[in-house]
Amino acid sequence: MPELRKDPVTGRWVIIATERAKRPSQYGKIEEEKKGGFCPFCPGNEKTTPPEVLSYRPTNTLKDQEGWWLRVVPNKFPALLQEGSLKRSADGMYDMMTGYGAHEVLIESPNHEHTYGDLPEEQIQEIIWALRDRVVELRKETRMRYIMIFKNHGREAGASLEHPHTQVIALPIVPKRVQEELSGSSKYYEYKERCVFCDMIQQEQEDGTRIVMETDNFLSYMPFASRFPFETCIIPKEHSCFFNDIQKNQVVELAAIMKRTFGLIKQALSDPHYNFVIHTTPFDETGNSPYYHWHIEIMPKLTKVAGFEWGTGFYINPTPPEVATKYLLDVAAKQDQQAAPPSAGAQIADLH
Amino acid sequence: MPELRKDPVTGRWVIIATERAKRPSQYGKIEEEKKGGFCPFCPGNEKTTPPEVLSYRPTNTLKDQEGWWLRVVPNKFPALLQEGSLKRSADGMYDMMTGYGAHEVLIESPNHEHTYGDLPEEQIQEIIWALRDRVVELRKETRMRYIMIFKNHGREAGASLEHPHTQVIALPIVPKRVQEELSGSSKYYEYKERCVFCDMIQQEQEDGTRIVMETDNFLSYMPFASRFPFETCIIPKEHSCFFNDIQKNQVVELAAIMKRTFGLIKQALSDPHYNFVIHTTPFDETGNSPYYHWHIEIMPKLTKVAGFEWGTGFYINPTPPEVATKYLLDVAAKQDQQAAPPSAGAQIADLH
Repeated sequence: MPELRKDPVTGRWVIIATERAKRPSQYGKIEEEKKGGFCPFCPGNEKTTPPEVLSYRPTNTLKDQEGWWLRVVPNKFPALLQEGSLKRSADGMYDMMTGYGAHEVLIESPNHEHTYGDLPEEQIQEIIWALRDRVVELRKETRMRYIMIFKNHGREAGASLEHPHTQVIALPIVPKRVQEELSGSSKYYEYKERCVFCDMIQQEQEDGTRIVMETDNFLSYMPFASRFPFETCIIPKEHSCFFNDIQKNQVVELAAIMKRTFGLIKQALSDPHYNFVIHTTPFDETGNSPYYHWHIEIMPKLTKVAGFEWGTGFYINPTPPEVATKYLLDVAAKQDQQAAPPSAGAQIADLH
Repeated sequence: MPELRKDPVTGRWVIIATERAKRPSQYGKIEEEKKGGFCPFCPGNEKTTPPEVLSYRPTNTLKDQEGWWLRVVPNKFPALLQEGSLKRSADGMYDMMTGYGAHEVLIESPNHEHTYGDLPEEQIQEIIWALRDRVVELRKETRMRYIMIFKNHGREAGASLEHPHTQVIALPIVPKRVQEELSGSSKYYEYKERCVFCDMIQQEQEDGTRIVMETDNFLSYMPFASRFPFETCIIPKEHSCFFNDIQKNQVVELAAIMKRTFGLIKQALSDPHYNFVIHTTPFDETGNSPYYHWHIEIMPKLTKVAGFEWGTGFYINPTPPEVATKYLLDVAAKQDQQAAPPSAGAQIADLH
C-alpha cells in the first residue's frame, strides 16, 4: 500500500510509492527512450492492461477486446490504491495517511501516434466526455476530495509510454497547488467581489497580445506571469467552477480549441514534450463557487527547471508570453494560408 | 531590464528575462550537451567573464588573471540586474516590478571536473567562506530582501556550463517557497513553542533510519516526506536562522559533511545531475528567529517531474527515504573498507 507523508514544515504531502517502487540500483543507468517496442495500449493488446473501467465502442464488440475507439483502464502501477481504508496516523511528530485513491489511464484512441493536435475533433469530444464520465463516477466515493486530470507527453514530461494517454488521479486530500489557487482567488473575491479568472479573461480580451484563439465560449491565451515559455491556458469564458458541469455545446468548442492550440504548439515547436492539467473545484465545495473558475494549463518542457526555481518557487521565463503568442500566431497564419479554413465556430484571434 | 510579474491568482512571482531572452525559433532544436569545448570558467579565460567581484588568490597574482583558487563573477546573462531602481507598477489588474537584483557565479576551483564530492575539504571550506562573504556584501544593499544560493549540476538540473560553479541571486522579494517554510515553521512555533527543524533533528536522531552522516555540529539526512529519491538535507544541529552566522569550526565540519554526502551520492548513483539550495532567513527578520533554521537541500534529478506534480504540487517518490539511506550507507561501508578511514571529526552514523 502506498503511503502519504506530510512535510512538517510546509504541509506538503508526498506519495511514497511502493507499487511503483524503484530499486536504488536502477538509478545508475540512464533510461533510453524506447521507440517501436511492444505497446500495451495498442488494439489487440487489451489483455496486457488491467480490465477496462470504461470504453466507448460499437455494441457488437466485447469488453477488453479490439474494436473500441476509447478505453479507460486502472493504471498497472498505480500511485494510489482504491483498497483498504483511509487512515491517518502519526510517526512521532510526522503525519501520514494510507495511500488511498484511484489512478486511471484514458487511452485516447487506437492510434499509436495521434494526440490532441492530430485527432479528429469528434475523437477529442469523446475524450472530454470520457474524462467527465470518470469524474462523475469517482466523485461518488465520498472519501475522495479531489480529482486531478493530467497528461504527460514525451519523456521530458515524465511519460513512460508513447501511446497517447491522459491520466486521472482521485485523491483523499485537496492538493497544495489547488489550495493556493483557491485561497488566492477567494481573497481576491473578498476584496473585489469578482472572480479573478473572469477579470483576467476581460483584461486579456482588451489587451489582446496574449490570445492564441477565441471561440464563443472559450479563450486560449498565454498567462501574463507565465512560468514557462509557451505556457498556455484554456478557460471557459462564462464563470464555472466544475469541469464536470461542462455543457454539450461547450464540449464541441473545447475540442476545437484544444485541437487548434495543441496543434499549433506541436507545429511551431517541433512536437515538444509537455504536461497538461485540468484545475477544477474540490468536491466538497457546496454549489457553484463564485471565486474559482476551472481551466486547463498546458506547460511545454522547453527549458529545465533549475536550482533557483526549486529553491524559491519562482520561475525564470526566458520568453515573454507576448513574444511567444505572436510566434504561434505567425505559424497559424502560414498554416491557414496553406490549408483549408479553420473549422466552423472557431476563429483565430486578431493581433491588435 | 528584466521584469518581475506576479500571478494574480497564486501571488507567485515570475522573472520574465530579457537579457537571457531566447527567440522562439530556437526551441525547435534539441540542445546537445557540449563536452570539451571552450570553457569561460577555466584558468586563462578570465577575460571572457565579467570582471570578478571577489577572488581568493595569492597576493602576487592580479585581478582577472590566472592564479586564483576561487573566483566570483557577475553572471554574463543575469536573471536580474543591479541597475536602475526598484519600481512597482500595474498593468491593468496585473502587478509587476522592475527586475532589480544581483546574479553572481562562484567558480568553485580552477579544476574543470571536480566539485563538492571530489575537491579537498580545504577548498570546500573556501567555497563556504566565499558564499558567506557574498551574502554579507549583498545584504548591505537595503533593497535586497533575500539571497538564494543554489547549484545546478548537469544538464538535467539546468546547468548550461560544465565547469563546477554555484550561483548567488539577491532578490527584492522573499520567494514563495521560503515564505511557505517561514509561515509553516512559525505556525508550529506558535503551537509548540519549539522550532520544527530542531524537533525534526531530534526525531531523526532517535529514529536513525534516515541519517546519512552525523558530526558534532551537523546532520545529513533524508527527509521523512522526501519529494525525490535520495533527496538529502544538511542542517546545523544547534538552532541558527542565518547561514551567514556560521562559526569557523562549523565551516570545517560543513565542508567535511558536504564532501562526504555529495561524494556518496556521486558514487552510488553514477554522478547524477542534481540541484542544491541553501535556505536561510530573509534579511529583514530582526535578530535570531526562534522558528526558522537554515539548511541545505540536495535534490538529485533521477525521476522526471510530471503533470501530476505540476498540477497538484505534491510529489510521487518511488523510493522511500529509508531505502535510499540504507543504499547510500552500504556504498559508504564498501568505500570505507577500501579506502582510508574518513577524515577526523566526521563519523558515519550507525544504522540502528
